[in-house]
Amino acid sequence: MYQTDRKNAPNYFSIRTDLAIEARELAQQEARQADHLEGVAVKTEENPDYFLTHVEIHSEKGSRLMGKPMGNYITLEAEKLKENDAECHEKIIKVLAENIRSLAQFDEESCILVAGLGNWNITPDALGPKVVSKILVTRHLQETLPEEIEETVRPVAAVSPGVMGITGIETGEIIKGIVERLQPSLLIAIDALAARRSNRINAAIQLSDTGISPGAGVGNKRMMLDQESLGIPVIAIGVPTVVDAATLVNDTMDRILGEMMQQTEKGSAFFQTLQSLEQEEKYQMIADILGPYTGNMFVTPKEVDAVVDRLANIIANSINIAIHPGVTMDDINKYTF
Amino acid sequence: MYQTDRKNAPNYFSIRTDLAIEARELAQQEARQADHLEGVAVKTEENPDYFLTHVEIHSEKGSRLMGKPMGNYITLEAEKLKENDAECHEKIIKVLAENIRSLAQFDEESCILVAGLGNWNITPDALGPKVVSKILVTRHLQETLPEEIEETVRPVAAVSPGVMGITGIETGEIIKGIVERLQPSLLIAIDALAARRSNRINAAIQLSDTGISPGAGVGNKRMMLDQESLGIPVIAIGVPTVVDAATLVNDTMDRILGEMMQQTEKGSAFFQTLQSLEQEEKYQMIADILGPYTGNMFVTPKEVDAVVDRLANIIANSINIAIHPGVTMDDINKYTF
Amino acid sequence: MYQTDRKNAPNYFSIRTDLAIEARELAQQEARQADHLEGVAVKTEENPDYFLTHVEIHSEKGSRLMGKPMGNYITLEAEKLKENDAECHEKIIKVLAENIRSLAQFDEESCILVAGLGNWNITPDALGPKVVSKILVTRHLQETLPEEIEETVRPVAAVSPGVMGITGIETGEIIKGIVERLQPSLLIAIDALAARRSNRINAAIQLSDTGISPGAGVGNKRMMLDQESLGIPVIAIGVPTVVDAATLVNDTMDRILGEMMQQTEKGSAFFQTLQSLEQEEKYQMIADILGPYTGNMFVTPKEVDAVVDRLANIIANSINIAIHPGVTMDDINKYTF
Amino acid sequence: MYQTDRKNAPNYFSIRTDLAIEARELAQQEARQADHLEGVAVKTEENPDYFLTHVEIHSEKGSRLMGKPMGNYITLEAEKLKENDAECHEKIIKVLAENIRSLAQFDEESCILVAGLGNWNITPDALGPKVVSKILVTRHLQETLPEEIEETVRPVAAVSPGVMGITGIETGEIIKGIVERLQPSLLIAIDALAARRSNRINAAIQLSDTGISPGAGVGNKRMMLDQESLGIPVIAIGVPTVVDAATLVNDTMDRILGEMMQQTEKGSAFFQTLQSLEQEEKYQMIADILGPYTGNMFVTPKEVDAVVDRLANIIANSINIAIHPGVTMDDINKYTF
Repeated sequence: MYQTDRKNAPNYFSIRTDLAIEARELAQQEARQADHLEGVAVKTEENPDYFLTHVEIHSEKGSRLMGKPMGNYITLEAEKLKENDAECHEKIIKVLAENIRSLAQFDEESCILVAGLGNWNITPDALGPKVVSKILVTRHLQETLPEEIEETVRPVAAVSPGVMGITGIETGEIIKGIVERLQPSLLIAIDALAARRSNRINAAIQLSDTGISPGAGVGNKRMMLDQESLGIPVIAIGVPTVVDAATLVNDTMDRILGEMMQQTEKGSAFFQTLQSLEQEEKYQMIADILGPYTGNMFVTPKEVDAVVDRLANIIANSINIAIHPGVTMDDINKYTF
Repeated sequence: MYQTDRKNAPNYFSIRTDLAIEARELAQQEARQADHLEGVAVKTEENPDYFLTHVEIHSEKGSRLMGKPMGNYITLEAEKLKENDAECHEKIIKVLAENIRSLAQFDEESCILVAGLGNWNITPDALGPKVVSKILVTRHLQETLPEEIEETVRPVAAVSPGVMGITGIETGEIIKGIVERLQPSLLIAIDALAARRSNRINAAIQLSDTGISPGAGVGNKRMMLDQESLGIPVIAIGVPTVVDAATLVNDTMDRILGEMMQQTEKGSAFFQTLQSLEQEEKYQMIADILGPYTGNMFVTPKEVDAVVDRLANIIANSINIAIHPGVTMDDINKYTF
Repeated sequence: MYQTDRKNAPNYFSIRTDLAIEARELAQQEARQADHLEGVAVKTEENPDYFLTHVEIHSEKGSRLMGKPMGNYITLEAEKLKENDAECHEKIIKVLAENIRSLAQFDEESCILVAGLGNWNITPDALGPKVVSKILVTRHLQETLPEEIEETVRPVAAVSPGVMGITGIETGEIIKGIVERLQPSLLIAIDALAARRSNRINAAIQLSDTGISPGAGVGNKRMMLDQESLGIPVIAIGVPTVVDAATLVNDTMDRILGEMMQQTEKGSAFFQTLQSLEQEEKYQMIADILGPYTGNMFVTPKEVDAVVDRLANIIANSINIAIHPGVTMDDINKYTF
Repeated sequence: MYQTDRKNAPNYFSIRTDLAIEARELAQQEARQADHLEGVAVKTEENPDYFLTHVEIHSEKGSRLMGKPMGNYITLEAEKLKENDAECHEKIIKVLAENIRSLAQFDEESCILVAGLGNWNITPDALGPKVVSKILVTRHLQETLPEEIEETVRPVAAVSPGVMGITGIETGEIIKGIVERLQPSLLIAIDALAARRSNRINAAIQLSDTGISPGAGVGNKRMMLDQESLGIPVIAIGVPTVVDAATLVNDTMDRILGEMMQQTEKGSAFFQTLQSLEQEEKYQMIADILGPYTGNMFVTPKEVDAVVDRLANIIANSINIAIHPGVTMDDINKYTF
């Protein structure tokens, strides 16, 4: 699970979100700009089954305001992602496959590396490795495949490098080592994300072309995986699978107090006290009360195992369709069982 | 995971806790009695490695105040339960084994049934099934064991019946069916619990002789597993492995506001508003804000898989030692690998 | 995994098979009757995707010859069961659903119990529990379902009782206890089988209406699960997932020697020696050479995990379609994810 | 699982074994030398709990005779490896740790890489990944550890790269990429092996300093992991967890026919036919009879899951003790839970 780098981000991003749509909400709130942020272009598309938001950060100023690198962020939101609705999921697979293809130019023959980031021992962090286990891997078959099949699949390799606590090695180092040996033309990296709002958990999928920074890490030595560090384009695919406990408390309290304020006399001493608190201070107060294990606590739904399995299936199908010339909507679930 | 029955409990227990020590805190708070509750006797024992609290509810009045059935509740608290400290865990296994034996008289020959309640697909709810997988099961071997070994083990059977959502059958029905056929002299039931405070997660083990009510269940038709319903004594063993998200927000907010109150003028309108809110109302407000999936959200630590494995190991060792005449502290981990 | 009871079966069935089609081959061989066995009616149906054999044992004589109880045995054979061929599997699901319905009369409203026999810790024996995890379980929802949905599903409960080595309780006892409490109108029991030939592994599915005898068991106290013992009809569904090692050696040796015999002079002393060996003796010789762990050794394909998952999916889909009035071929994989 | 390269090995090694002690048996048989092979030195050590064989291949001639690279092969055999005997396993851990240290000089500070080869989805092939999950990994902690602890542990990294069928990348490529980036001073690689005899399954552990060739692979492009290819010493640790089905049939048939020959007139035509068959031909005949899936079939014991878990625990403990200066026999199971 990666998370916004709190050290380097502007102060108001102290509360973690990996989602561009949440970063935008926060930035708008901070900038008291309801509609527009400079350097940030937003397009939305509504559909009975899902809601699509394309955020493009196209200037340094926009990047600073958003606390995120310049580039494209496409978020698909759908309550039905949490449910077992095969028909709706087919539509989502189709739109995801199209959007994956829109984020990078790639010919039909070069090798693509798919990397599943995260810890397979922690259910909500196992999304990446689960996607990887459902990718149609073909790089090792290229010489033995009959020609008619060879044209329908490109060479694809897929790895789940594990997290630093398991391997003792930064994820980025392993990925970089493999990229250097394989020389793929594209890296697709899948990771579980942290959201701010519990209602976003497992209800959104974010695609971006701005790279990914695997592993939270205390020391912050994390190696960014992006075009600059790897020399190849990187498509990151993420799903918010948890909210950290302190963030949940903070946001819920803000909202509940907001509602209560409306019912009581404004300007009371308490209201002032609360208003005068910096977000950072308030978050720290909550974290202190939650105790030393807080950083370690997250909020997740009971049925997280089943939902992460389904999400991994949706994402793996959309990747398989996006990258293999001959894999189509008719092949859904053929390689992801 | 079971939880206090909110329908039948007095109003002030609306926020769920399965732990007698937390129920006592709440009851004392409500009754504004710092030291004593009528009908409730408390003994504590401090130790460098753990803290032991024996709560005995010995009257109807005490049961009403506590919102729990009459009987004995023994809670062992230890921060080190969360850590990989083999030496400390050995001490805990020893004291748990002694306390299990203190909760029921049993001869050395009759059969004991161990039941692991909970859902094996949900990590923090898998404690019971994991304990069961480590129990030294012997009932089927009684006729084939050599005599010298036969004297060291009693007949023990063990089942993990699964939860109603998986089987379509109330857990209590399955257990009752098995008890009727096997006629054991004692049921030991293990279940994951819900706590109120995040710092209690995976840091306490509760033993009781008052029975257990498996499965939360909306319809509340749950069958109580106790001496009355089964005709045999029941020892329940539970560990709080989660806090539900709304409870966490509620309690943290209470504490943070409490601290903030001290710093601002008392008697403000806001303070009054807050004071005047019934706990039930406030909980409902939070639940509404958290949205329709709230009931489904829980807070749990990242390393929950490893911690639940370790807790299952500790509990299984203590049960094996408590119930088999010839299994001793020298046999720790021999049957629980 | 169950297996033919070697103690009570006629001598020539000493080498284990759970498949009626293999029992028939053996019986024909023994009786030197190529086409017909008294009391045994056979119908076959060939299809590009599968081969269907309906064996009906309709007399005591037939039962003795076959070493199996009177009744119907339907076996579907398909090499493609081992492969990931969604289209072919759909056809198989359809024909299985029809044949399940042909084996028992059941109205649309009474409760059905599905039982997954076998040990979930041993991959090739985990078929039953895996099927159960994919059954659409509805018994607990009957009161809360909206009427229009209620009519499309019947009450279904499903359990995986575990094996005697895990629970200390005979599987039959647990099933019987549950049947007594639930009073279902039908039991469907799924189990992994042992085959004689390695090429049948994971390539056949057998349905029968003659009951099932879970667990091999040294003591042979096994409780038969059938109409007689339970008072309700029983449909057994099984897949051969292993061959025991000694059987594999025995059969392969028979065949290789057979071929070698053809090339050398008949009537040699060696040939006579071999001919004079009883099957039982030969099997014992092999078992002795394989050593004390032989009984414990089985032959299984490398990809057994994936194949058992797929088989469980096929069987669960066919059961869901067979028993729920409103579940159709359009709902394939909807409940089995 | 790796296996002797059948293409390049001398003809008489056509039947696969990864164990030096089995290669020696075969070579002696072939050379009709009961005691001694040129260029091969053998030392044995008997002990109530285990049997230790040290095979040193010290000349090119010895290497050719054995079909294995020059170097040291230490094999520990113990029936109790299959059982849950904690006391005996402690002794084995001790002797393994000493022998691991004897196979490579290493200072106390340089980094060691541990690699778990094999496929985690196939139980008997999951030994390597399971060992890795129990290694005390410290490389990422070196800067944050307090000095007194830092001296007790060396930097250790650990990876389970997966097999080519999963990743599309040769295991050797991934390992080589990581070795190049990390520059460790030693590689310890753990893999499951194939044995010839079913009674050796899970009953032997082989250590060697001659490198390892991960993945069987038809194409035989496999990259050897050894001092030559990696530039650092390599310790290979392996356990035979399977016998391939055709090998089992072949060897058992040889032995059963051997016994039968003794009882019948020697020199019969049949005996001659059999004698005249090349091993290679006979193996092929068996493989043909077993059918197209034979290469895919293996023989393994029922309780393989539990045994592989125990073996992984023994090996991981012995590695942790061998490589970390401050980890001793008192820390057994402390890091391997």
